[in-house]
Amino acid sequence: MSFYTDVLNYEKVKTLAADIDHIDLSTTKIIKDPDVAAATALSIYNNNDISTEALIEAGKRRKKAYRKNNIIGFVPIYLTNHCDGECKMCGMRKNNDSLVRQFSTPSMIDEQLKFLYEQQHMRGVAFLTGEYNDGFARSANAFIVGYALRRALDFGFKTVYMNIGSLQPEYMEIIADFIKPEDRHRVAMCVNQETYNETMYTRFMAQEGDAFKANFKNRIDSHDSWSKMGFVSHQIGSLLGVNKDVGEEVAGLIAHAKYLMSTTAKTVFFSLPRLNPALGTSNKKLVQDDALVRVIATLAFVAPESAVMMTTRETRELQDQVMPLLGCLAPGTPEVGGYLNDPEMMPNNEKVAQFRISDTRMPRDTFERVEANTEFNILDFVSENNRAETGLVANH
Amino acid sequence: MSFYTDVLNYEKVKTLAADIDHIDLSTTKIIKDPDVAAATALSIYNNNDISTEALIEAGKRRKKAYRKNNIIGFVPIYLTNHCDGECKMCGMRKNNDSLVRQFSTPSMIDEQLKFLYEQQHMRGVAFLTGEYNDGFARSANAFIVGYALRRALDFGFKTVYMNIGSLQPEYMEIIADFIKPEDRHRVAMCVNQETYNETMYTRFMAQEGDAFKANFKNRIDSHDSWSKMGFVSHQIGSLLGVNKDVGEEVAGLIAHAKYLMSTTAKTVFFSLPRLNPALGTSNKKLVQDDALVRVIATLAFVAPESAVMMTTRETRELQDQVMPLLGCLAPGTPEVGGYLNDPEMMPNNEKVAQFRISDTRMPRDTFERVEANTEFNILDFVSENNRAETGLVANH
Repeated sequence: MSFYTDVLNYEKVKTLAADIDHIDLSTTKIIKDPDVAAATALSIYNNNDISTEALIEAGKRRKKAYRKNNIIGFVPIYLTNHCDGECKMCGMRKNNDSLVRQFSTPSMIDEQLKFLYEQQHMRGVAFLTGEYNDGFARSANAFIVGYALRRALDFGFKTVYMNIGSLQPEYMEIIADFIKPEDRHRVAMCVNQETYNETMYTRFMAQEGDAFKANFKNRIDSHDSWSKMGFVSHQIGSLLGVNKDVGEEVAGLIAHAKYLMSTTAKTVFFSLPRLNPALGTSNKKLVQDDALVRVIATLAFVAPESAVMMTTRETRELQDQVMPLLGCLAPGTPEVGGYLNDPEMMPNNEKVAQFRISDTRMPRDTFERVEANTEFNILDFVSENNRAETGLVANH
Repeated sequence: MSFYTDVLNYEKVKTLAADIDHIDLSTTKIIKDPDVAAATALSIYNNNDISTEALIEAGKRRKKAYRKNNIIGFVPIYLTNHCDGECKMCGMRKNNDSLVRQFSTPSMIDEQLKFLYEQQHMRGVAFLTGEYNDGFARSANAFIVGYALRRALDFGFKTVYMNIGSLQPEYMEIIADFIKPEDRHRVAMCVNQETYNETMYTRFMAQEGDAFKANFKNRIDSHDSWSKMGFVSHQIGSLLGVNKDVGEEVAGLIAHAKYLMSTTAKTVFFSLPRLNPALGTSNKKLVQDDALVRVIATLAFVAPESAVMMTTRETRELQDQVMPLLGCLAPGTPEVGGYLNDPEMMPNNEKVAQFRISDTRMPRDTFERVEANTEFNILDFVSENNRAETGLVANH
């Protein structure tokens, strides 16, 4: 049984969706069946009779019912910007000769963890790298990321994430070897599928040949393997704009999340980055704000047990607009070692970074403002009024 | 000032050697000048009037005067057998599709360290890997090796070695970041030049194209960079048989060692592996035993302050024959994770190993026999009668 082989089927979902003639936005039921949930999401997303405003309200209500006022917080640390991928849209792509390549020493990892823990009061952190083609580089990257995850856990971080490309069991074994069995529930694997349409995926990710990432099935199977290894936290995602049929992405994300929850998953995150039409163009996106908001509302409504994510790729204004629908907020910079230059603002230098961010406030500023001005609590962030009790400065 | 640019010059050494008309085998003087020492070594090696027996006796005497009855011991741990090199003679070469590739998890590293420390009573250990072409793989390998060196030092090993291909300052920085400044004198870099003849080097190491290893200068410069980084322990070497003019290798090794000792080096090891005429052929060598013994005796005589190494590539009989000339004995297996399969014998499986070993006794057996039957003490090995005092079983 695997998601790719046994579940993913957009034609089937479209047929099921065509049979749905009524959506009850006041429902409190959770649909567990991946096909039925995907069809419901597709039907909602495409139904012009359901306004985005009504959908937002319904999504908020359901999100609150399942996840209360909690929003999970974490901050990304880019360990390197080397990558063997050839994905057209990405600043880290192998053939981007204008990107200055960087690699973290162990001290850089420790200093960033210390800064995020002590100065930013974070207890959730993600490690990001490129994806590599040959067996040695894939193994070596897994080793380094396993090391970093273990350092973060030893440092006192409660939840750790990694976003390092697809992972096969042999590489997961290397990572798992760094993680004590009792800590496995604290480790999330982020493998964004980019698009659930295999044809478009292949066209987009394999521009020039032999990138490992060009294999759609290897990528999607990573989540099945992660479950089988005894891990329970997954981030899935779509790079919105690769597939013009956004409904197919909504259906794919929902089917995938519901499938994972039906196996061993305890938490599924939805990552929804948006494609820029061309590198270097500022804030234009192929999927507009209103469409993104509708995707988010649909996901929050159909899968309120999961967590829709937003990052500082998006503006502060858009973050605020969808805050009640979010299960996770992850402010950060894609610069390697980026938190150590300026304690007041995150850097945003496209000579070294994967993409441009729209919001350069420090994570602490973002989270303190959310907690001060809204009803939401940030999980894995030590709130201002809890710092006295929990100890303002960790002892390392 | 660098060895490659300012010292290495076989033509000059040959001219100087031609002017030497008398060798005094009873001398107690150490020649420090690299050119003069190399010319002396070349003159001795090629002089048919000096018998190998007389040279052995003189070498023994001088070795004993400078290094006493001490022989440094260490054991190699292969972390992986992945390699991007294309060196014809090597089982790990990239295009050897019949080699099963392996990669160590952190547990495997720890288990081998524990076994070598507790069961084999070793206090010296070397980490070996392949060499990689692209910046990420080179950086990642440096990170993993730095991690392993640090684990070994933390475990209680007194001297640690690495043999991971040439190293440039950016990769040394990653390794150095794992090593406390006060521990730097305990870390040796092993970069065997294979041959000091650049033309032959290039022909041999770059069979099929773009291996990083094909760059002769990058390789030789590694030692200059290592000194500049504040490290003081170097292993240099020749793969005997690549260059038919063995005298050129003797001259190159001596010039290199004397040059390094004139900068900041405290210890220089000579590694002298021998090329087999073809892969898979058993024990035939291009350089015969008598020639190897003469090389060893010449090096011991001209550079008794340095340490000629021998490994279990060579038979027990040959080890015994040259023991009084050796500064270092390093028994071990080139199998990844090889010490954990059988506590009685080292494995020797060419499906996974870089080369075949001639002596499969465990390191402890080798060293105990040396200490029981000869006048030599093995450094970085806890002798049988010292175990009670030093604690038989380490507490980890």
